[in-house]
Amino acid sequence: MPQFDLETTLKRILAVDADRMNAIQAHLDQQTKPKGSLGRLEEFARRYTAITGRRDIRKKAIFTFAGDHGVAEEGVSAFPSEVTAQMVFNFVYGGAGINALARHAGADVIVVDMGVDFDFPPLPGLLVKKVGRGTRNFTQGPAMSREAAVRCLEAGIELARFCKESRFDLVGTGDMGIANTTSSSAIAAAVTGLPVDSVTHRGTGIDDATLANKIRVIEAGLKRNAPDPKDPVDILAKVGGFEIGGIAGLVLGCAAEGIPVVVDGFISTAGALIASELNPHVRDYLFAAHQSVEIGHARILERLGERPMLNLEMRLGEGTGGALAMSLIEAALRMLREVKTFAEAGVSEGD
Amino acid sequence: MPQFDLETTLKRILAVDADRMNAIQAHLDQQTKPKGSLGRLEEFARRYTAITGRRDIRKKAIFTFAGDHGVAEEGVSAFPSEVTAQMVFNFVYGGAGINALARHAGADVIVVDMGVDFDFPPLPGLLVKKVGRGTRNFTQGPAMSREAAVRCLEAGIELARFCKESRFDLVGTGDMGIANTTSSSAIAAAVTGLPVDSVTHRGTGIDDATLANKIRVIEAGLKRNAPDPKDPVDILAKVGGFEIGGIAGLVLGCAAEGIPVVVDGFISTAGALIASELNPHVRDYLFAAHQSVEIGHARILERLGERPMLNLEMRLGEGTGGALAMSLIEAALRMLREVKTFAEAGVSEGD
Repeated sequence: MPQFDLETTLKRILAVDADRMNAIQAHLDQQTKPKGSLGRLEEFARRYTAITGRRDIRKKAIFTFAGDHGVAEEGVSAFPSEVTAQMVFNFVYGGAGINALARHAGADVIVVDMGVDFDFPPLPGLLVKKVGRGTRNFTQGPAMSREAAVRCLEAGIELARFCKESRFDLVGTGDMGIANTTSSSAIAAAVTGLPVDSVTHRGTGIDDATLANKIRVIEAGLKRNAPDPKDPVDILAKVGGFEIGGIAGLVLGCAAEGIPVVVDGFISTAGALIASELNPHVRDYLFAAHQSVEIGHARILERLGERPMLNLEMRLGEGTGGALAMSLIEAALRMLREVKTFAEAGVSEGD
Repeated sequence: MPQFDLETTLKRILAVDADRMNAIQAHLDQQTKPKGSLGRLEEFARRYTAITGRRDIRKKAIFTFAGDHGVAEEGVSAFPSEVTAQMVFNFVYGGAGINALARHAGADVIVVDMGVDFDFPPLPGLLVKKVGRGTRNFTQGPAMSREAAVRCLEAGIELARFCKESRFDLVGTGDMGIANTTSSSAIAAAVTGLPVDSVTHRGTGIDDATLANKIRVIEAGLKRNAPDPKDPVDILAKVGGFEIGGIAGLVLGCAAEGIPVVVDGFISTAGALIASELNPHVRDYLFAAHQSVEIGHARILERLGERPMLNLEMRLGEGTGGALAMSLIEAALRMLREVKTFAEAGVSEGD
């Protein structure tokens, strides 16, 4: 399907119009409050509205991409790989953290099987875009082929088109995949050139010995595969994951379609980093939901030039931070729509 | 009315039960997520539920206390004093920042005239608890009498009883009063002993010369009145404000009634500081909504031992940060109620 083609999509991603943002700020500056006093809420409203041309959100969706990782067999996680598939069932049945927080935000949860090592029966709310049954262990060779990496990206791009057609005006990314902080740290190190130990942390809660092993495993994978730091698709293929590729594709597709994307924590931001390395204009469309506890997250947010909206010391993934951030964007739009101007309210302006 | 008596209320404020909090955390630790991975959301749910015995919020209210300040005549604000009354009308008519954000949060806005220099007609949503028509200019003598300060506190205590009877399970504080950052900085300096210039900032957006004057005015007020740092009521009377006293009283009353209080920004936190100096157990009932741009705010949050929930570079007051924070507490309670346990969801536990 040519419309989901990676190269075509990359050409369609343009910077957000600064004049539009200035026009919205001019209105905010006439509202009954000291100029700029609603801080980042003003930024959220300005950017969302400049991207979409809207001052409301019709529908919101969080895409929780799931995939398994061959590198899990190296003992890098506190949980066994079978938890990836178990959690997919939990998402579909509505019992996980993301389900509770998405209900709070009024967002749909759409689970995407990008490459779980399990064949699911047809389930409502589960989209199957399987590129494989888990990646290969990247200490032994590339996690996936370059062709598979492009398929992941194009699956995400196709979902963005679905969002446009279905009137999802705000999209959030999320992830599930045992060992996917290992893959995300490897991506972070490969893109930035930072030492592995400066971008690698405890994931689901591993102890010191397991963390030391995780760092060694990532270093071994980078040495074995030598991903080209200038080639994001090569990095995704060699040390990435299917769900991370899906996230990167969704980010690219949404930027091409003019849909703002709320990026969750460490894994989602690793996906956004791949997207941004392919076309830096995607940054204009991103809302960095929160600052994760994972130490590598701050490093890749810096690289992206994004400031997180929240810092609640979370480290769950799934899209949970994004659900909370969506609510802040809704609040910002309420402000934009509903606060009266000085003239309307008969309030004296300041100096 | 003896039930709103300050001394009686202070005796009724008890620490929140640690066993209750531990029991709630034990449930959170069985939910399908790595232990502690929802970070501060877990803290919010644990503390709200331990205080109230509830896992939901029936009704929420934000009390926006308004009062004028005699010290405004010293040229410490970017806005004229008449804006206090104009903004009260704006609140009642639903056009201000707090109205938009409270609608987003599903909270009522209740405006309390503690001492505006204007006689309002009867207006829906406006409670008149006037203690005076603006405080006196504290560079010339005390802002109010000790008796007036106690009346402010007892007005707030009475409102907490109203909340209990009306099933408001979560209460937010807010403020409106031209020159009230001046009064709040004076309170901060008087309680903490910190230099005035380390707790004084730009309020609604004053320039360097006005800021230098504001610091001189506060220093003059503290010198003239010499409030006793060990006597919070004396500090409130000498350099405080009617609306700040109302906030302090509401905090005390809510702690006595077992109602959690979301404390907004700098002015609200100055009120909470007065309350906490009267009975430190009130801290257990406080949720510090956000980190304000005002530099004195971080200092008094430290004194209170409270960490802000949000940092969105806001500096509007009115209760706006509190409205956003309420939504995070709701999200936390969704998590507590709705996330399945490992056993319920059939998910394998980690190490």
